[in-house]
Amino acid sequence: MTSHFYPVILAGGRGTRFWPLSRKKRAKQLLALDGKQTMIQQTVKRLLPLASAKHFWVVTNDDSRPEILRQLPKLRREQIVAEPVGRNTAPAIGLAAFILQRTDPDAVLGLFPSDHVIADDKRYQQVLQEGIRIASSGENVVVLGIQPTRAETGYGYIEVGPPSTGNSRHVRRFTEKPNAERAGEFISAGNFFWNSGMFLWSGRTLTNALAEHLPKTAAVLETIADSYGTRAFASTLRRLYPKCENISVDYGILEPRSAKGEQASNIFCLPADFGWNDLGSWTALHEHHTSRHAGKDGNLISAQGIFILNASGNYVHAPGKFVAVVGVRDIVVVETDDALLVTTRENSQDVGKIVKHLDEKKLKKLV
Amino acid sequence: MTSHFYPVILAGGRGTRFWPLSRKKRAKQLLALDGKQTMIQQTVKRLLPLASAKHFWVVTNDDSRPEILRQLPKLRREQIVAEPVGRNTAPAIGLAAFILQRTDPDAVLGLFPSDHVIADDKRYQQVLQEGIRIASSGENVVVLGIQPTRAETGYGYIEVGPPSTGNSRHVRRFTEKPNAERAGEFISAGNFFWNSGMFLWSGRTLTNALAEHLPKTAAVLETIADSYGTRAFASTLRRLYPKCENISVDYGILEPRSAKGEQASNIFCLPADFGWNDLGSWTALHEHHTSRHAGKDGNLISAQGIFILNASGNYVHAPGKFVAVVGVRDIVVVETDDALLVTTRENSQDVGKIVKHLDEKKLKKLV
Repeated sequence: MTSHFYPVILAGGRGTRFWPLSRKKRAKQLLALDGKQTMIQQTVKRLLPLASAKHFWVVTNDDSRPEILRQLPKLRREQIVAEPVGRNTAPAIGLAAFILQRTDPDAVLGLFPSDHVIADDKRYQQVLQEGIRIASSGENVVVLGIQPTRAETGYGYIEVGPPSTGNSRHVRRFTEKPNAERAGEFISAGNFFWNSGMFLWSGRTLTNALAEHLPKTAAVLETIADSYGTRAFASTLRRLYPKCENISVDYGILEPRSAKGEQASNIFCLPADFGWNDLGSWTALHEHHTSRHAGKDGNLISAQGIFILNASGNYVHAPGKFVAVVGVRDIVVVETDDALLVTTRENSQDVGKIVKHLDEKKLKKLV
Repeated sequence: MTSHFYPVILAGGRGTRFWPLSRKKRAKQLLALDGKQTMIQQTVKRLLPLASAKHFWVVTNDDSRPEILRQLPKLRREQIVAEPVGRNTAPAIGLAAFILQRTDPDAVLGLFPSDHVIADDKRYQQVLQEGIRIASSGENVVVLGIQPTRAETGYGYIEVGPPSTGNSRHVRRFTEKPNAERAGEFISAGNFFWNSGMFLWSGRTLTNALAEHLPKTAAVLETIADSYGTRAFASTLRRLYPKCENISVDYGILEPRSAKGEQASNIFCLPADFGWNDLGSWTALHEHHTSRHAGKDGNLISAQGIFILNASGNYVHAPGKFVAVVGVRDIVVVETDDALLVTTRENSQDVGKIVKHLDEKKLKKLV
């Protein structure tokens, strides 16, 4: 355990591509898509060897907070903060940094998505320990980079320079999601990583960076932090937080910082070689499971009983039922008490469009 | 109404290809697959203008009888006979014939499957009235023939000779289900009809024919008929009925009779030009509905609410749920409280194999 380490877990996403299982009040990170524990429970569990339970922060929204309180009984209510409106990652971790500066000037903060899966917890903890060491010193920032396996256009990329101490490498620059051609170039170049969204830095470094690059937001967050621990906090947060810029850490702080040059910026990338997967869709979930468990013809079926005939590559989630799959390939079927999704592995990216439609039609019970 | 007409409705089938909706105790004919009434209710309703309610017979089994009693409250319990074991159509209608000979020597019996749909009830009644007239005289037998629309290998065929009185034509012979090549020849020849399984004949003609062609079965049925109306009927039926030959009307009586030659056999075919469909599978049901209602891209979806994106030709039955169909073609999905079927329009013929599997595994709740 690293006594000054504070994990800030982001749990405000909706994960609409896991509809109909994911809902506003039961977002992707609150589902047990992989194993018996939910993804946020797994996130906390794998960080607990590194940080005291009372050092965790969870940043979420009003819809998800009740379920998170239920799922993480070891955390106190004050550790689970609901943003009145989503403002992306920079204000979320910034608020934690300003608050922690008041109680622990040596705090090292880690930013963690709560809806990714990690295959090797031990290796994850080793990488983070190295990252915490680097982030504890000076004005260093550490980002965890995923070795790319395909020319993915859905992620941001990190270009790295020469090796630095240990496994780390200097970061040259952050790039937004590329088009297919550029993504291909990145892969060929060999010195690009996917941006995992996991960052480490000291509270001091982070608050200084916010003050430098997002001064308006920094001022708002400082005012909110002043009220932390008082009865006025909730109302102050609700009133002022919406005034923060809606901006990510990458775009608001790290890109401008990296413009200083790879030596001066002090941003380091650590290869996250611990089996990372962000499970972006039903198809990704299917591939994640079938890559680990050799299923019958690539079928992955959650059911009370199963009959398969001439079928392959299907994902069916109907845990309470007997499921029969006959003559179909690469189909995704997911059912809940009130909804049924029928799509293909190829089209499961479009599932978010269903939720958009339901939002527009104000079919609130279904979203 | 034709005062001596007695419809004998066969309702002992299982209709396993409509699993998971069809079950042992809720067979295909007891489902409302087409419209608000179940198929057996529709069968009775369209025959009621031709026959008194007290003249109906329903032959079924122990599994289906309770539900049939519920669905046909106008019929008395004695009118719904449960075979202790299935013995195909010859014993089923034969028993009715021997019993009716005792109370109405001028009875004309009609044999009717209970799991077909008919588009034009008026025309159906007209055809039957003509058939009843023909069957009332002499030793005539009438079979209703369906004008073939494709070289179907799943039906028996009737070869007809020259026109006789009215719309009727002499029957030359009955043929079993042909292979694809022969079916093609039948279609090209132009004088073949599909065997609808609907027959008309007098009780006298039928009992005589049974005595001639199936004497052993006729003797058994006569003994059972002797006990009808007494308290011994149920036990006699249960004891003796299994001794009947397991044979169809077509194969046991009409084929040998037709061997006498088309003039001597007195079998007549009436074209059943009233929009017949035997709904043999989920795919057939889908085609039946989409041919009548121009749905969106051929999707037929029973649901509480629907979202369709880039999808066509799908059949989804999930009446209590919101159904989203994204990027799929020609898929069949049917769900019940305890089961979920995922197949394709092309493969829905194989659904019966699921039931076979469930039978073998003794998963009784699911069949």
